[in-house]
Amino acid sequence: MKDKSAKLYEQVADDIAELIDAGTFRTGERIPSVRRMSAQRKVSVSTVLQAYGLLEDHGLIEARPQSGYYVRARLPCICPEPDISAPELDPTEVSMQELTMMVMKDLFNPKLVPLGAAAPNPEMLPNQKLNRILASLARRKGGLGIQYDTSLGCKELRVQIAQQMVKAGSRLHPGDILVTSGCIESINLCLRAVCNRGDTVAIESPTYFGILQSMCALGLQALEIPTHPQDGISLDALGFAIEQTPVQACLVISNFNNPLGSCVPDPNKKQLVEMLLEREIPLIEVDISGELYFAEPRPSVCKAYDQHGLVMLCSSFSKTLCPGYRVGWVAPGRFKSTIEWLRFTSSLTAAFLPQLAVAEYLDSGGYQHHMRRVRRTYALNVSRMIDAITAHFPENTRVTHPKGGFVLWIQLPKSVDSLVLYKQALRGGITLSPGYLFSPSQRFKNFIRLNAAVWSEEIERAIIRLGDLIKVIAGPNPDPNF
Amino acid sequence: MKDKSAKLYEQVADDIAELIDAGTFRTGERIPSVRRMSAQRKVSVSTVLQAYGLLEDHGLIEARPQSGYYVRARLPCICPEPDISAPELDPTEVSMQELTMMVMKDLFNPKLVPLGAAAPNPEMLPNQKLNRILASLARRKGGLGIQYDTSLGCKELRVQIAQQMVKAGSRLHPGDILVTSGCIESINLCLRAVCNRGDTVAIESPTYFGILQSMCALGLQALEIPTHPQDGISLDALGFAIEQTPVQACLVISNFNNPLGSCVPDPNKKQLVEMLLEREIPLIEVDISGELYFAEPRPSVCKAYDQHGLVMLCSSFSKTLCPGYRVGWVAPGRFKSTIEWLRFTSSLTAAFLPQLAVAEYLDSGGYQHHMRRVRRTYALNVSRMIDAITAHFPENTRVTHPKGGFVLWIQLPKSVDSLVLYKQALRGGITLSPGYLFSPSQRFKNFIRLNAAVWSEEIERAIIRLGDLIKVIAGPNPDPNF
Repeated sequence: MKDKSAKLYEQVADDIAELIDAGTFRTGERIPSVRRMSAQRKVSVSTVLQAYGLLEDHGLIEARPQSGYYVRARLPCICPEPDISAPELDPTEVSMQELTMMVMKDLFNPKLVPLGAAAPNPEMLPNQKLNRILASLARRKGGLGIQYDTSLGCKELRVQIAQQMVKAGSRLHPGDILVTSGCIESINLCLRAVCNRGDTVAIESPTYFGILQSMCALGLQALEIPTHPQDGISLDALGFAIEQTPVQACLVISNFNNPLGSCVPDPNKKQLVEMLLEREIPLIEVDISGELYFAEPRPSVCKAYDQHGLVMLCSSFSKTLCPGYRVGWVAPGRFKSTIEWLRFTSSLTAAFLPQLAVAEYLDSGGYQHHMRRVRRTYALNVSRMIDAITAHFPENTRVTHPKGGFVLWIQLPKSVDSLVLYKQALRGGITLSPGYLFSPSQRFKNFIRLNAAVWSEEIERAIIRLGDLIKVIAGPNPDPNF
Repeated sequence: MKDKSAKLYEQVADDIAELIDAGTFRTGERIPSVRRMSAQRKVSVSTVLQAYGLLEDHGLIEARPQSGYYVRARLPCICPEPDISAPELDPTEVSMQELTMMVMKDLFNPKLVPLGAAAPNPEMLPNQKLNRILASLARRKGGLGIQYDTSLGCKELRVQIAQQMVKAGSRLHPGDILVTSGCIESINLCLRAVCNRGDTVAIESPTYFGILQSMCALGLQALEIPTHPQDGISLDALGFAIEQTPVQACLVISNFNNPLGSCVPDPNKKQLVEMLLEREIPLIEVDISGELYFAEPRPSVCKAYDQHGLVMLCSSFSKTLCPGYRVGWVAPGRFKSTIEWLRFTSSLTAAFLPQLAVAEYLDSGGYQHHMRRVRRTYALNVSRMIDAITAHFPENTRVTHPKGGFVLWIQLPKSVDSLVLYKQALRGGITLSPGYLFSPSQRFKNFIRLNAAVWSEEIERAIIRLGDLIKVIAGPNPDPNF
């Protein structure tokens, strides 16, 4: 649906961007001249010039003097990706509590260059529109927003979520969905619903440290499964591991894993669901970055292949719209009544008006336009940061090339301890996430996660500074074999 | 602080109400005539007439023809209170999951007469003012409200909470407080911070079923302590019990227990804190109804006597201002870092703008005026419901006479099964909370909790109907000895 408030040149730019995404105009190809496009679209030459300018700003096309406009190459693959991880297939107790909380405090320090937290680009959040809706709702729906709400959450929002997930291949009924206070509450409820203290959960290696901390707080063991930077969790390894070790659940960030950026291909998703169904192992699927794909189509979710209610799908609007509204959700399949009960016992329900504001925003038609802009920006900023890392980090650095999301996972020379780097960077006013946090067995000592959501001169300087620090820590002859 | 928006006659009424509360004008005494008050206060006769009318409406005074205005008797004690509870002092596993969730669903069904849920009177919530503030904030503070917030929550709100708790005898620093999504999240975090699965927690008998369900979900055992309808938890019994049974925590709703209405007297609060300190047993104190006292002064909190950070004080604004905003808080004493971490792992942080809206409301000066009106209304409605129960329930019914809050705990003849009554009442369109829910050992079979927040003809008819149902279930000769 088009956003009626978008200007004409923005609409023209959107249409061309879609043609590029769809492959109609391919990398390196010349796009129609300004004059021709003006005639084709029946818009003025200056509108086309504005549209092309916008596409240039977003890094989608480039002007070549005396020749015209060309589709830019994206994500050049100069710097290789890290290898698939190789954890030992034994359950590990999860800890790192102090380090995590220390890093979390720094992550939200506005005085630091924010390469640490996986927070979205503030300029990519539709502040004004959402706030206008919230303000209007507060005036119109006062009594409703102030009283207790039922446990599933705002009906209008659940309808919107169900509609949105059709694109991801999942047919959800609004009654299948429970609104939560952010994705981490969803994940927590799912873990509590299917696991008891001491149980083992199969997870990707590496995975988001908030999940590891949740597991630690619930006394759960982690079984780390090798995970590939492109295709995600290794199904062979998972199959082998769950034959050896009794596992009560499997937890996967199926699309654009944080920190790895991996996206499980559709056939693997289907196979993963079938493999777990055979053993009746519930799958907790996290899709929080699923909407942040760089090229159409939107990746599907494992939940789309779930015929037996064994997949619990968790997500939120924290990466796309409004982290501060705390609006997440879970589609818990057959565990719905347990999840509802656990929710009642732990937080009752979520704040109502922010939910309704998100629902009205999603229904307003501006969402698709907003997301196209967001995806293009993140694709561009991710490629810019990869370029900068390639240019300024030591030669044998490896970096992921994610196809969605906005974080990068970087393998440094083996001699570089990411905790040492973290502390030195912090003294220089730069925050990052040391690799220690992303595995209970602390196997990613020489890895860091960087947030690539924002690109600016300050960020570029920070990358250069980090490169210098790394070179000093690595010493003159860093081990080339990692 | 006075609310500047209050009309003159409201201010006069407030002042007189305060004199009545303070005992300056006692029950049955004549208050100054309209003419004299007009001269004393230097206001017009019609203003005094309006003020007296308001006090009449609130049931504080009554006009006697040819004689003047008199202070009305409040809370007539015709119907005796239930005895102190007498649970067996053995730990009990908590359950009743299905019944609780069934009752919870009914409680929020707007088609039923709402005597079940402990929801505040919708007319006693400052909808308009809070919403105006929220709307204004959404327009002014957009970006701030939309991004991730740090873990402790909105600073402005924590300052207001610290100020508010001075009246309850507690000196809190804003940094001692963590904002949560409602009181139940606070309680849950506290239980998780100090207990492991299988541990035993000493609780009041009866206590709020949400707490029992939280304990059940965390695998905790309950040690029920005899609790008096006026003075709350029996310290003798508690002292005896914790000598016999190892207890990892004690959980007490110190002011206006739900459902019992009991309020632990100040010397008992002090003694309770000392008694637990001796054994280093943490006290989880719930003060959610502490602001709903019927007569000055506001009761203190146990936390006021806590020199060693062993008391974890939990509360929220759900009973006084805005349940749907989900703004609660905890002052966790020495357990702060654990609570912060558990919060990070389970829901990260609460929605920001609702917190800031509550802070601005508390700072605006209207809060004290609002609360005086709320307290008077609840005192009146509670006394009206006690009168109606006395008139329409069987002769040997007992009912609590709380000095704050808005729920009543009613002991019916022993032959009345509250679950049978619950089901029959539901068929008649009335919801109530059966006594089963309030004890893990289900010792309150012939008890019910009624919400007395609202009084209306519909509620009065519902009480009459309940009385009829009870009489039928009890049979012609109900056991007089319970």
